[in-house]
Amino acid sequence: MSETPVAFTEQDHADRMVRAARDAVSAGLAGLLVTPGPDLTWLCGYRPAVPTERLTLLVLVPESEPRLLVPALERPDAEAAPGAGALRLSEWRDGQDPYAAAAGLLRPNGHYGVSDSTRAVHLLGLQEALPMTTYRALTTVLPMLRAVKDDHEVARLAAAGTAADAAYEEILSVRFAGRRERDVAADLARLLRAHGHGQVDFTVVGSGPNGADPHHEAGERVIEDGDMVVLDFGGLKDGYGSDTTRTVHVGEPTDEERAVHDVVRQAQQAAFEAVRPGVPCQEIDRVARTVVEAAGYGAYCVRRTGHGVGVTTHEPPYLVRGEQRPLVAGMCFSIEPGICLPGRFGVRIEDVVTCTETGGRRLNTTPHEMAVVS
Amino acid sequence: MSETPVAFTEQDHADRMVRAARDAVSAGLAGLLVTPGPDLTWLCGYRPAVPTERLTLLVLVPESEPRLLVPALERPDAEAAPGAGALRLSEWRDGQDPYAAAAGLLRPNGHYGVSDSTRAVHLLGLQEALPMTTYRALTTVLPMLRAVKDDHEVARLAAAGTAADAAYEEILSVRFAGRRERDVAADLARLLRAHGHGQVDFTVVGSGPNGADPHHEAGERVIEDGDMVVLDFGGLKDGYGSDTTRTVHVGEPTDEERAVHDVVRQAQQAAFEAVRPGVPCQEIDRVARTVVEAAGYGAYCVRRTGHGVGVTTHEPPYLVRGEQRPLVAGMCFSIEPGICLPGRFGVRIEDVVTCTETGGRRLNTTPHEMAVVS
Repeated sequence: MSETPVAFTEQDHADRMVRAARDAVSAGLAGLLVTPGPDLTWLCGYRPAVPTERLTLLVLVPESEPRLLVPALERPDAEAAPGAGALRLSEWRDGQDPYAAAAGLLRPNGHYGVSDSTRAVHLLGLQEALPMTTYRALTTVLPMLRAVKDDHEVARLAAAGTAADAAYEEILSVRFAGRRERDVAADLARLLRAHGHGQVDFTVVGSGPNGADPHHEAGERVIEDGDMVVLDFGGLKDGYGSDTTRTVHVGEPTDEERAVHDVVRQAQQAAFEAVRPGVPCQEIDRVARTVVEAAGYGAYCVRRTGHGVGVTTHEPPYLVRGEQRPLVAGMCFSIEPGICLPGRFGVRIEDVVTCTETGGRRLNTTPHEMAVVS
Repeated sequence: MSETPVAFTEQDHADRMVRAARDAVSAGLAGLLVTPGPDLTWLCGYRPAVPTERLTLLVLVPESEPRLLVPALERPDAEAAPGAGALRLSEWRDGQDPYAAAAGLLRPNGHYGVSDSTRAVHLLGLQEALPMTTYRALTTVLPMLRAVKDDHEVARLAAAGTAADAAYEEILSVRFAGRRERDVAADLARLLRAHGHGQVDFTVVGSGPNGADPHHEAGERVIEDGDMVVLDFGGLKDGYGSDTTRTVHVGEPTDEERAVHDVVRQAQQAAFEAVRPGVPCQEIDRVARTVVEAAGYGAYCVRRTGHGVGVTTHEPPYLVRGEQRPLVAGMCFSIEPGICLPGRFGVRIEDVVTCTETGGRRLNTTPHEMAVVS
């Protein structure tokens, strides 16, 4: 179940870096500048052991070997990264100016894409060292950089989904009634870790009216018999994300609760069936909303239908009105329609889905039927 | 032992924000722009529950009420922050341009300090919305912003130190010989959590030659009888940091090992005794080095002597050659001299110390003598 995943190879990383540099040119950029974070991990496999304030910078320019500038102390770690063989390392030492070192790798008047999470102190340092350079945030110019996954990436996402499924199956047998939401959330986090998640990003437990608050996490409310409970949980397993939502009920649900749950289930199913290459992202959102609106709950469907999942648990593509870019085979994203009845209860059902050449494939497979817990 | 700490009040946060704005003017700035991270937490007590890509921005300008711009969805969380009563909240909604909203709070040609960790995507957004504004990284212009702690902050750091001491006392009775460094590191992390740490930042276990690698964390090496082992561990308890190092020995040490350990112990003591208001930071570093050099190990003393600890485990002031700013009563920092004998072993002893009006006060109190473990 929790086998070691297939390792990404130097060639995998080399391919990603070549593709990213080519995409940069198509977007009118001189190249890409990437600091530690999800983009760097994905491109060259390097993730500094400890986040430091020192500049680490990957420079991708077309027709040229990728360059990685690192603090001298961290060079051994960088050399051990899976993609290190596909790039040329250079270093700067304490006491040297890292921005002068970086400037040597850039065109003095270049227009560069820079990773969104780059720290302001580094961007200001580059702007000062090379005042004629200009910058755009990476997700603004290349939103789909990491959106299309290769087979090994899909395999990791599937393994994360399987682990999340196992955590869900076990949470059904814990006690809900009489316990605080945050205690059930702690159980969920423990189960995700027990099933191989190295990082837990969120464990939402929204009971009763809290299930209708789209921003609720998990709090002091004591869960009661008769509550609907939204469970939305995920994190990273072997570097790739899970994100699952199921709505359970403490004791027997009312007819209205069953009816609302059924609408959401049908909306999720319809949206799933609409997945295929070429379909605009916003169409998946529209299909889900249509089902909810037809049942008379259109005013209570407040969130976007989905978001991409990969080396992070929230990333492009976004399944939202206005996103006209098409689905591409290999994209992986959540489909998570919901209905929120303010002050009363909420229902949401979410699977991570990958777009294949022939349609959608779910990476979560636990039943959508409303489980009854005690 | 692990009592709930005294809560910071609205007045505490109001005072910090007023002081920060005044310091900004002294540094030639129009004001300070602060996004989520340690600076925001310290200034107004607000830490978003989940880090998001949406802009949250605190604007501090002298003679004017502090303003906090937040995504509408996150407004209830921001309103619940301890310092919320001391600032004016405004919000932006999905679909609106957050940078236009922020621009309304700024002078079109202002020169602002911006928190170092601000994401590049936000800085670029501000630069585009107001092309005549200019920016400096906050730690470049106001490095000592958070360096002087008030009594309640010192109390939290002391509580974190006491918890770290308790973890250290318990780690002495676990098995070292025959186990991997990373297993002992996991024990240390578990003990820190058991003693109230909500976040563990590092648990270095450097056995034998790994103890002499200043960049080593904890790895696969199996600890052997006869090893020196450097234990360097810390994290956050109730939002304030601990950072402790002790060097232990598996079985009886040799005379040389004892001698090197004694030198480091004396260096730490001498540096501690040099602490008082007005002494330049670099002087503490010089005092420690002088002891190590006099014993003939000057070439093997490779790290700075210390760094500040507060809402993060590494921050100004830095006790390092060239740092001429004086110690001020209320500053809290590590004193951690060491000797690294490459390929052989290392010794380091570290306490967090606060500077009082009359001298230093240790926030760790476990013995410095080399403990023998099994």
